[in-house]
Amino acid sequence: MEVEPPKELLKPLQLPQRILTGPGPSNCSQRVLKALEQQVLGHTHPEMFQLMDEIKAGLRYAFQTKNNLTLAISASGHGGLEAAIGNVLERGENMLIVKAGIWAERAADMAGRLGIRVDFMETEFGVAFGLREFELAVSEYRPKAVFVVHSESSAGLKQPLEGLGDIVHKYGGLLIVDTVASLGAEPFFADAWGIDVVYTGSQKALGAPAGITPISFSPAAEKKILTRKSPVPVFYWDMTWLGRYWNCFDPRTPRPYHHTISATLVYGLREALAQLAEEGLAASWARHANVSQKFHEGLARRGYQLFVKQPQHRLKTVTAIMLPDGVEAQPIIRYAMDRYNLEFSGGLGPTAGKVIRIGLMGVNATSGHADLVLRGLDDAVKYAKSCQLKSNI
Amino acid sequence: MEVEPPKELLKPLQLPQRILTGPGPSNCSQRVLKALEQQVLGHTHPEMFQLMDEIKAGLRYAFQTKNNLTLAISASGHGGLEAAIGNVLERGENMLIVKAGIWAERAADMAGRLGIRVDFMETEFGVAFGLREFELAVSEYRPKAVFVVHSESSAGLKQPLEGLGDIVHKYGGLLIVDTVASLGAEPFFADAWGIDVVYTGSQKALGAPAGITPISFSPAAEKKILTRKSPVPVFYWDMTWLGRYWNCFDPRTPRPYHHTISATLVYGLREALAQLAEEGLAASWARHANVSQKFHEGLARRGYQLFVKQPQHRLKTVTAIMLPDGVEAQPIIRYAMDRYNLEFSGGLGPTAGKVIRIGLMGVNATSGHADLVLRGLDDAVKYAKSCQLKSNI
Repeated sequence: MEVEPPKELLKPLQLPQRILTGPGPSNCSQRVLKALEQQVLGHTHPEMFQLMDEIKAGLRYAFQTKNNLTLAISASGHGGLEAAIGNVLERGENMLIVKAGIWAERAADMAGRLGIRVDFMETEFGVAFGLREFELAVSEYRPKAVFVVHSESSAGLKQPLEGLGDIVHKYGGLLIVDTVASLGAEPFFADAWGIDVVYTGSQKALGAPAGITPISFSPAAEKKILTRKSPVPVFYWDMTWLGRYWNCFDPRTPRPYHHTISATLVYGLREALAQLAEEGLAASWARHANVSQKFHEGLARRGYQLFVKQPQHRLKTVTAIMLPDGVEAQPIIRYAMDRYNLEFSGGLGPTAGKVIRIGLMGVNATSGHADLVLRGLDDAVKYAKSCQLKSNI
Repeated sequence: MEVEPPKELLKPLQLPQRILTGPGPSNCSQRVLKALEQQVLGHTHPEMFQLMDEIKAGLRYAFQTKNNLTLAISASGHGGLEAAIGNVLERGENMLIVKAGIWAERAADMAGRLGIRVDFMETEFGVAFGLREFELAVSEYRPKAVFVVHSESSAGLKQPLEGLGDIVHKYGGLLIVDTVASLGAEPFFADAWGIDVVYTGSQKALGAPAGITPISFSPAAEKKILTRKSPVPVFYWDMTWLGRYWNCFDPRTPRPYHHTISATLVYGLREALAQLAEEGLAASWARHANVSQKFHEGLARRGYQLFVKQPQHRLKTVTAIMLPDGVEAQPIIRYAMDRYNLEFSGGLGPTAGKVIRIGLMGVNATSGHADLVLRGLDDAVKYAKSCQLKSNI
């Protein structure tokens, strides 16, 4: 053999147990983890189709939609964004991207690669935009699709969505919404709010492992896909195939072989959605609201400022806390992990170097986690200040 | 709520235990399954980077390569094919596809969507092609890349690869090879055979769950990617990002956030590669060879014909068995599953309706599995013949 077996693989797998209170992934419940170790099944077995049908039903509940074309893509959340853009837009068409953080930059990058023209609506980072400025931008650019992030996890910002769909539709476009960091934790109504494409992350409030990404298309979006002039540029994201594999169109159509879905991730997502169905959406929203309120009150008592100034626009899942003067993020993050086993995260994109981001979602949205994170933050900031003092001497 | 929690999700998850002796996925080992239920970690944790480094080392061993740009994509095997094409070819460039079964059709579909011109080299289905006809095609079309399938699982055909790289390189192209159904089971030497891009499936002979796809690029392929005139059309497959995330380039470059890798699938692939390193490639190849020999001898004794006539070109993993006269595939498949819990599969693409496909790979490549499958096949064919008799009366 030219290449010998690597020694590092001959050691047993050893994994630390972390409390994932960053912006995601969040921890999985014991029930979800138990499902992951079940022996795999084939990607066209009747039992697999049954599980996929159950996931579809669970996702329609989670998204609050009756959309037929509701399924999960075999990729991470970024794949959901790229599939959304690639399916409802064609080369040469234009898209309006509301620039509120890093996801807008990624969306523009993805669209540009596919030859889609991009216009931006600029916003102040950490501030939700209003209907009037939104309509101004939409009426100016008349985009075929508009991309809005519900949960801007880089800033801890929740963008209200009511009314946006009507505006986009008035000017003949489709509304694409990213709910990666909010679905299951924040009230969301795809149909009532007129949202045409919505995707989310499996590994945040839903509490499934990463790698399988829920997505849903309204009848108008579905029509656009089925009447495209050119094929979807990426076979792997092509909803005309995926919709048949997931049995979203005429139920008499045979389910074709498109790709080998990961049985493991199907089990995990199915169980996560089952837990959401058992708890109930309203109860899950209330739990996340209560825990985030407790957490934000605790932060206020300690004198922390949040990056998002208006309380009603703060995400309940991910909180961006302004770094106290003269304190850096790195020692805080390191200390929290070393001493408390807690994941904290720095800023991302426009918030890089300015904030610490903490996530309380899914199984980690509990009062106990809020207390633990506050204690960990107290100590970590104290430590970071002492580092700062030392370096100033 | 407009949409109520679905009743089917309120039932507990119940999964059958199947013996996956179709063309894939194969079963996972208990050790791999045990790894899957470990609590998730973040996608940029040091421990995750360590596991990714171990996977890289394991893949270099499995592919027999020293390629720096060796990693795993967060998608199923089809994503590997699409990433291979999308990274080393640009819009308007030409690609030669050796047409030996369904994977060639898929490759052509994917390339066409990206504006890549496709030429075909036709072959007789179930028959390996030779160097002379290959050079004729390559010299005629002078493609920027050539796509060849090592393990054509739709026909049970193994295509010899020695010498192909030299021919492709002589005419200035890159050689892309699909080893989805062979890596770990059939001798394969990426560097020695001059292969520029190779990908495989995690869920076949390697025995990991589906959803994470190993891929490797030669220095020449890497250079082509880094000197493209246009960006890779799909962000999700972009090796300039993925290579940095997987730390394949300058090790001093920070590892950026590209997407949220699935910790669960990383654990599974790491453990599958560890088991391969422990057994040793040569031993794994010998095991698959012995089991397939025993299986093929058993089939011959029973008078079955194989779709691939030349014994040396039969895949050791997936065998395509000609359906006996007047017998249909469906009752055989159904009977084997109902009575033996065994997965058999029908044909695919050019073999549809003509064959039964049986796979013995990974943990299922044992003498006991070969015996069981032969017994199951005997009974299933007897049953299918009785169905046929009844329908003839």
